[in-house]
Amino acid sequence: MSLPKLFLLLWLLGSRFTTLAASPTAAPRTSPITRIDPTFWWVGMKNPKLQLLVHGPGIAGSQVELATYEGVTLEGFRKLESPNYLLVNLTISPTAKPGKLKLLLKGTRKVAYEYELRQRTTPGDKTKVQGISSADLIYLLMPDRFANGDPTNDVVKGNRAPGVARDSMYARHGGDLKGIEQHFDYLKDLGVTAIWPTPVVDNNMPKAGYHGYALTDYYAVDPHYGTNEDYVRFVQRAHQQGLKVIHDVVLNHIGSYHYLWLDQPAKDWFHQWPTFTRGNYRNGTVNDPHVAAQDRKLFSTTWFDTTMPDPAQENPLVATYLIQNFLWWVEYTGVDGYRVDTYTYSDPGFLMQWGKAILEEYPQLGMFGETWMQEAEGVAQQAFWTRNVFPPINGFKSNLPGAIDFILRQALLESLTKPSGFAEGTAKLYYAVQGDWMYEDASRNVIFLDNHDVDRVFSVLGEDVRKQKLALAWLLTERGIPQLYYGTEVLMKNFSRPDGLLREDFPGGFPGDSKNAFTAAGRTPAQQDMHAYVRKLANYRKTHPVLQTGQLTHFVPEDGVYTYFRHDAQGHTVLVMLNCNPTAKSVPLQRFAERLQGYTSAQDVLTDAVVTDLQTASVPAYTALVWELR
Amino acid sequence: MSLPKLFLLLWLLGSRFTTLAASPTAAPRTSPITRIDPTFWWVGMKNPKLQLLVHGPGIAGSQVELATYEGVTLEGFRKLESPNYLLVNLTISPTAKPGKLKLLLKGTRKVAYEYELRQRTTPGDKTKVQGISSADLIYLLMPDRFANGDPTNDVVKGNRAPGVARDSMYARHGGDLKGIEQHFDYLKDLGVTAIWPTPVVDNNMPKAGYHGYALTDYYAVDPHYGTNEDYVRFVQRAHQQGLKVIHDVVLNHIGSYHYLWLDQPAKDWFHQWPTFTRGNYRNGTVNDPHVAAQDRKLFSTTWFDTTMPDPAQENPLVATYLIQNFLWWVEYTGVDGYRVDTYTYSDPGFLMQWGKAILEEYPQLGMFGETWMQEAEGVAQQAFWTRNVFPPINGFKSNLPGAIDFILRQALLESLTKPSGFAEGTAKLYYAVQGDWMYEDASRNVIFLDNHDVDRVFSVLGEDVRKQKLALAWLLTERGIPQLYYGTEVLMKNFSRPDGLLREDFPGGFPGDSKNAFTAAGRTPAQQDMHAYVRKLANYRKTHPVLQTGQLTHFVPEDGVYTYFRHDAQGHTVLVMLNCNPTAKSVPLQRFAERLQGYTSAQDVLTDAVVTDLQTASVPAYTALVWELR
Repeated sequence: MSLPKLFLLLWLLGSRFTTLAASPTAAPRTSPITRIDPTFWWVGMKNPKLQLLVHGPGIAGSQVELATYEGVTLEGFRKLESPNYLLVNLTISPTAKPGKLKLLLKGTRKVAYEYELRQRTTPGDKTKVQGISSADLIYLLMPDRFANGDPTNDVVKGNRAPGVARDSMYARHGGDLKGIEQHFDYLKDLGVTAIWPTPVVDNNMPKAGYHGYALTDYYAVDPHYGTNEDYVRFVQRAHQQGLKVIHDVVLNHIGSYHYLWLDQPAKDWFHQWPTFTRGNYRNGTVNDPHVAAQDRKLFSTTWFDTTMPDPAQENPLVATYLIQNFLWWVEYTGVDGYRVDTYTYSDPGFLMQWGKAILEEYPQLGMFGETWMQEAEGVAQQAFWTRNVFPPINGFKSNLPGAIDFILRQALLESLTKPSGFAEGTAKLYYAVQGDWMYEDASRNVIFLDNHDVDRVFSVLGEDVRKQKLALAWLLTERGIPQLYYGTEVLMKNFSRPDGLLREDFPGGFPGDSKNAFTAAGRTPAQQDMHAYVRKLANYRKTHPVLQTGQLTHFVPEDGVYTYFRHDAQGHTVLVMLNCNPTAKSVPLQRFAERLQGYTSAQDVLTDAVVTDLQTASVPAYTALVWELR
Repeated sequence: MSLPKLFLLLWLLGSRFTTLAASPTAAPRTSPITRIDPTFWWVGMKNPKLQLLVHGPGIAGSQVELATYEGVTLEGFRKLESPNYLLVNLTISPTAKPGKLKLLLKGTRKVAYEYELRQRTTPGDKTKVQGISSADLIYLLMPDRFANGDPTNDVVKGNRAPGVARDSMYARHGGDLKGIEQHFDYLKDLGVTAIWPTPVVDNNMPKAGYHGYALTDYYAVDPHYGTNEDYVRFVQRAHQQGLKVIHDVVLNHIGSYHYLWLDQPAKDWFHQWPTFTRGNYRNGTVNDPHVAAQDRKLFSTTWFDTTMPDPAQENPLVATYLIQNFLWWVEYTGVDGYRVDTYTYSDPGFLMQWGKAILEEYPQLGMFGETWMQEAEGVAQQAFWTRNVFPPINGFKSNLPGAIDFILRQALLESLTKPSGFAEGTAKLYYAVQGDWMYEDASRNVIFLDNHDVDRVFSVLGEDVRKQKLALAWLLTERGIPQLYYGTEVLMKNFSRPDGLLREDFPGGFPGDSKNAFTAAGRTPAQQDMHAYVRKLANYRKTHPVLQTGQLTHFVPEDGVYTYFRHDAQGHTVLVMLNCNPTAKSVPLQRFAERLQGYTSAQDVLTDAVVTDLQTASVPAYTALVWELR
């Protein structure tokens, strides 16, 4: 006799207050209650409300009772369109203690369920939810493609795509949490302080589940990467090593094999279209005073892709479901920050509600969003999607602390790929930084050269090592939170299209790899040179707060040379000069007098050379100078 | 005996209250008082304060007295650095009557001066200061290059460049106010409702005074164009003909032969540099949170060019001088609007003060500014310089009603010169219009295809008649106040550089011209075709308020076709479809259903054809459809 059956039997006998161990995670598929989301909860949350989504075949007709539990009140329950769901609303007072709630469902069958309330840990534990700031250097990696630390989870039985195929860019390659853990030392040595894995949640999809953005279970880690508890330990170990973890959050869509799509609570939990209707991908429809209603609809309510249903976040029940899920992940794992995928695609009202709820519960949580912008949309549109100086537009005012700064990236790349002119090349970079007046605090933006969705920077820059070094010097000295994409430090390259090779495996991360770029010995001289460059500057940045939080003062670019300073009240000043020309430049420094005064020499941070001439700087072609003034 | 000497003599005899006719404008150079600015004033102004700048050799040591005048008080006077100036402060109470104030200056000599106070006329006269709105079509012309109506003023004796030389693009050609007046009928017939001549004020410069932006007298019309009174009559006659007049205001700089520069009241009336120092032309320095102090200085306080001294507008005395001058021009002439040259280059605090003072006195005055932006600066930076949704940045919040929309122009031209893509070509135009959310009211922006400073649109568009027609259709149907540059309607062409041929004479405007494009008979078939196109659409716009004030709804461009609607609450709807492709397109209209519903046919505004099929639109290559729905 299975435990649930025994439990049911005892309850039917009238033993309403008997406590029996019926762990919800252990409930087999044959249980009348398939699952309850959130899978468990905590006492002591600021928000005392909890909405349980109970799933079980035919349970909609049931009446719900709650066995007496000090501090917990059953506020009500309701059925949805589907016969297989019930929503149960609870209030958990601040005085409630951890334990197990007994829920009793009386319908054609009578079912009992023990629901766990845990003790909250994040408020007292300073190693948890540390936040993300401009003091960090983020390393973005794809768990499937970084390192395979546990070959036993490469093939997941029963999964819709159980196997691995490293010769296919769209199949699983076998990377996992253990693989990342095994390279914590590599990352720390490089100067990294925070890891951002693309989503670790379950993507049990027949195709391309490796990318992580088609989740099929809001509450489970993908078994190819490890278990839920493995993830909790992963975060703990990272914290023990002085590394933070950023959790990649997908609010906008799910995978089409998600349990809530396969058995929908109600039609109005998703945006339904008679046939697949591709969206217009125009975030500007949200704040466009001239928008056509149809265009507005085609942005926020379409599916992101054919296999990605779009939850109806404007439905308060869906909103609550999502908010609870993302409170759950923070409390459960203690992650330090959220990266919010396809931020602009979500319902604007929901975004405000979601951000408020998350940040009220975890004000220290780092948070930044994918605000993918076209250059032509400009800083204003990017700033619109984060905390900014604007009033609410169409009722929307973002509470997102930081944007992923696509505009700045495009501008930086333009300065290295187009000739400079009054308004071209370096001028675009200057203009993009000038636009910081629109943000509440641009230093919360995540700046980057490339990521898992765009061409690798080495390829964009024509595999010119000089240009990539300049770009990296910019990345590590510019205002904001720098983000490095895995492998850029060892010259990984390739374009996004047509073959997805921008997501290749990190060499040395997989059993049998012929080369191992994780070690100096395994790197080619060119790889070693680039690695050393990143390592040197990243560690300099890590130990020099002036590059993290120092004020930025920049000067109008002249002749393709862009010069800026980071400086602080303690008298530290770092000069950065980017020569974006194919020729060397000799630059008189007199025009920077306001920032040079009081200094008589400098140390070249990249070469360790002492600079005694502060009258003129000689900068080779496509090279960055980084000088600590003395 | 000259009149001033007689006046002086009589005053010395003690006849303090004797009224003698000593017209200031008639005062010869030998007078102890060379001039007083403002040259006269009015009773009944909202602001009762008046600051007179009195100029005369050695008058600084004089004591000033005011003969008793009901309602006028002498508040004080002060000398400046120069021995040749005195500032006299008066208060003119609402009860004061028109008449002549008697100012008595007692120094080494004793001097009397009658200062005229006139009756204000603008408040009661509805033909004056009519304002400029999106109901207008502005015709921008250069008075020297449009038409020569009075050959007697071609050569001005005593002028620093007295002659004409029509074979030089940088010399005077002889056009004048009379020449414009003689073509009021031409302009009205074309559909124009407002004339914007480049500055008519005196530019008595040795070189290139024709362009008008190096003024040498704040209070005088350039004698090559006519007298001050001629200008007053010009405005009156324009108003009688149903045409408005826009006065081109130069706040930022003067010509280096300006009397205030040649004999400076004080050094701090101008930004002084040891040697000419070219500015950086970066308006972004004003609101850049990372700006270097030196860059900020190099924008606002440098001279616009070697021959253009920069008044120190942050000096309150200079500010008052300028504000009074531009109150004076409105009251004196009754012009309908101000176009403010190089708006962003002025001192930001002064701009706020100036705009407030002008609009408090003349709330109905139309006003828009030259906010020349680079595409990379984007809508936000342009909106920063006009009334917008932003909070004050660095203490600046513009009160300028409208911008000259450089961003929209660049976007329109891109849509006709670059292939369309997700974020290129027509998408840029879409994004630029989307940015309207940043303006308080984008319909107050002046939109244009070209002007006296940029390449003529026909040349930019490769002399493709189809493209220019499409651009004009856009100009006359887009939100905002359309501005046509003289001659575009008859295919005038050429680039700004190197030879300034964008400022050629209008054919037929000058005695002896072999061709006369002012008449249908004088136009080539191609000119006639373009003229008829503009005339038809401009007159349609003039008689159809839906194109002036109707709401704009646009749709995301698809496949290089950009579609928008103007519609109003009275049920009028105009569809505009711009096919920016080199091939014809057949466009299904189903996606525009929200704006087409209720209509069963349309009239093609350009061809007069009746359209009965609202299912599909066929648009030839590089062609605009303009349909009035029925």
